[in-house]
Amino acid sequence: MPEFLNLLPPQDALNILLENLVVQSRIEEIDTDKSLGRVTAGGIISDHPLPSFPRSTVDGYAVRAIDTHGASESLPAFLNVVGEALMGSEPGFSIKSGECGLIHTGGMLPQGSDAVVMVEYTQEVRDQEIEIMRSVAVGENVLKVGEDVSKGQQVLSPGTVLRPAEIGGLMALGITKVQVVSRPQVGILSTGDEVIPPDREIKPGQVRDINSYTLAALVEECGAVPVRYGILIDQFDELMSGMARALAECDLVVVTAGSSVSIRDLTAQVINELGRPGVLVHGVNIRPGKPTILAVCDGKAVIGLSGNPVSGLVNAALFVAPVISTLLGIQHSRPRPAIHASLAINLASQAGREDWIPVQLRQEGDNFLAEPVFGKSNLIFTLVRADGLLRIPPDATGLSAGETVQVVLL
Amino acid sequence: MPEFLNLLPPQDALNILLENLVVQSRIEEIDTDKSLGRVTAGGIISDHPLPSFPRSTVDGYAVRAIDTHGASESLPAFLNVVGEALMGSEPGFSIKSGECGLIHTGGMLPQGSDAVVMVEYTQEVRDQEIEIMRSVAVGENVLKVGEDVSKGQQVLSPGTVLRPAEIGGLMALGITKVQVVSRPQVGILSTGDEVIPPDREIKPGQVRDINSYTLAALVEECGAVPVRYGILIDQFDELMSGMARALAECDLVVVTAGSSVSIRDLTAQVINELGRPGVLVHGVNIRPGKPTILAVCDGKAVIGLSGNPVSGLVNAALFVAPVISTLLGIQHSRPRPAIHASLAINLASQAGREDWIPVQLRQEGDNFLAEPVFGKSNLIFTLVRADGLLRIPPDATGLSAGETVQVVLL
Repeated sequence: MPEFLNLLPPQDALNILLENLVVQSRIEEIDTDKSLGRVTAGGIISDHPLPSFPRSTVDGYAVRAIDTHGASESLPAFLNVVGEALMGSEPGFSIKSGECGLIHTGGMLPQGSDAVVMVEYTQEVRDQEIEIMRSVAVGENVLKVGEDVSKGQQVLSPGTVLRPAEIGGLMALGITKVQVVSRPQVGILSTGDEVIPPDREIKPGQVRDINSYTLAALVEECGAVPVRYGILIDQFDELMSGMARALAECDLVVVTAGSSVSIRDLTAQVINELGRPGVLVHGVNIRPGKPTILAVCDGKAVIGLSGNPVSGLVNAALFVAPVISTLLGIQHSRPRPAIHASLAINLASQAGREDWIPVQLRQEGDNFLAEPVFGKSNLIFTLVRADGLLRIPPDATGLSAGETVQVVLL
Repeated sequence: MPEFLNLLPPQDALNILLENLVVQSRIEEIDTDKSLGRVTAGGIISDHPLPSFPRSTVDGYAVRAIDTHGASESLPAFLNVVGEALMGSEPGFSIKSGECGLIHTGGMLPQGSDAVVMVEYTQEVRDQEIEIMRSVAVGENVLKVGEDVSKGQQVLSPGTVLRPAEIGGLMALGITKVQVVSRPQVGILSTGDEVIPPDREIKPGQVRDINSYTLAALVEECGAVPVRYGILIDQFDELMSGMARALAECDLVVVTAGSSVSIRDLTAQVINELGRPGVLVHGVNIRPGKPTILAVCDGKAVIGLSGNPVSGLVNAALFVAPVISTLLGIQHSRPRPAIHASLAINLASQAGREDWIPVQLRQEGDNFLAEPVFGKSNLIFTLVRADGLLRIPPDATGLSAGETVQVVLL
């Protein structure tokens, strides 16, 4: 029986991890103007309607709609201009039958008026008198009180990611401070006797640490705080003490677990000692990323990724990112940005396994051509050359040139 | 003749602005591990090959490929094990004819060996001797020196946005500091006698400032630094002194220019006095955003947006964002993330004008349904309810229900 039949599909593996997670989020209050990308901790209720007064959407004259009925170019209605609604204050006049008031876009409608006639359809006939060449209905060219938001309405639900629009909406309601979920701390450890810090000179047989930095950047992109614990040597005691410290101090721990079988087994052994229930998934039916370890230790997720930088980063996007979203309590997760493209060449894949292929996108008119970037999963510059990742679903034996594919951007 | 025929299409309007811009970027050196999202100022050259030594991609035995020729399960090749390549150092032995060395994934190949046999295809026959059941070709299961990057190769071109992969690539080469383009400073001004700061109580006729904050957040998302200059009242002198200060201190100035015709004309008049050549485009053939003003004053872009928050934010994405990309010197601009969706209803549009419609995306199986969020362009919560924007091209008179559309995410 092929080995991959014993391995879990990525989505099932992730679900097992998420089901075992105990989410304990902290809350902090921050200034709304510094909240871009943060996640609301509770629902936000408006304490007043928006707009809070009836506003004109055009430049023109505030009128009683009934006074304009039947008005046309050949038979205009005549109205007396009794005042001008100045911007930013309540008009000091009201509109009675046969009267109107000059108003500007965004101005407050005077008492008694219920519509606005655009200036284009009016004409001054003499001082303080205009003719109106078009009738308006009640409410025409007016923003009603509460048309955007009514008093007591929940305008944002808990777990909403704050984009520019949400920040603007909060400001419109005078909400200048907002309670958000604190950024989770994500502990990152590299292992490997051959791995040295990037600022050191390499000797033959040594490589510089890549994974601590690619993972830290990805964690940052996901809205969490990366905490790097450096490089551990491949010994039980050293791994154990480093990971125990990271687990105690962080909300999630990610370890890049070397690539050889013995080192991966050592990592799983350490994780099993760290806390209950320990390793939940050891091996996922995906390429790259088969050796991925998913664990929960005393409620916190611990994820072991391949030491190969391409594999590590691709699998961090698939497993670390959703755990961070869960810890942040993101509720309405917006669709993941992707690009539809036409595949440049035939791609083979093993049926039953999910494959992720780095691709370059080349614009051709309105469309994109996806060209696979081939390279072993140890070669970080394979990903540097790629714009995104193409998924080959497990039930496919490959994809054909010219097929439309979806590319998740890197 | 309809008015829109006199207005420029958005892309033409933007091109005029960009052609008149004088890009003067500053450069700074920062730590590579803090460079996420920044833009390289110069090209990056690798001063050594990657990998810098021949590495095994599997657990197994380093061999001379020629010694394995013809090996099979029925006729295995026998080799003497002369050592183990320890991780992180140069093997203290070399491989001669009839010899092999134990090696781990990522380990350095000993002198004399040119391929690795996976451990799965070997068997220990006695101490220090194995049999090999499969032949390997020269280079099999080996990463060659320079297979990822060769010495002297330009690994990143100037104007590259640094993603996690690029940061990892730089670290792999030992480049722990990188020269990036300084973030442009973007001055943001709101105008309007009715506009008050968000932390103040509103009186009838007043509204809180939304645009300063939505635009600041968008500017931040684009990789620039927003500098808010507060709210100016609609008078020539006040606008002039506020905008002159912003222009002197910033690389780009954005003003939300009120919504009434007289205020918009006042804004254009002030911009024309600010510097040469002044207003280049006054009015764009787009909805929302017709009154947009694009100007260059003494080499710097000055952009006047509608005071309506929806219009202001949509047009900032179309005009402010590409100016920031240009100031940052971004060269290879990656495709803008979008989602393909099926349109839920028929949408009418005026032929000859480009329309942008806020839409909500609802997932249905593997596909998305795009449902327009209707609301006047004064209503900020229209955008809060939206996941993205749908473009109706100028040559269309509308789109039909069921049509596949591209939604740019907000």
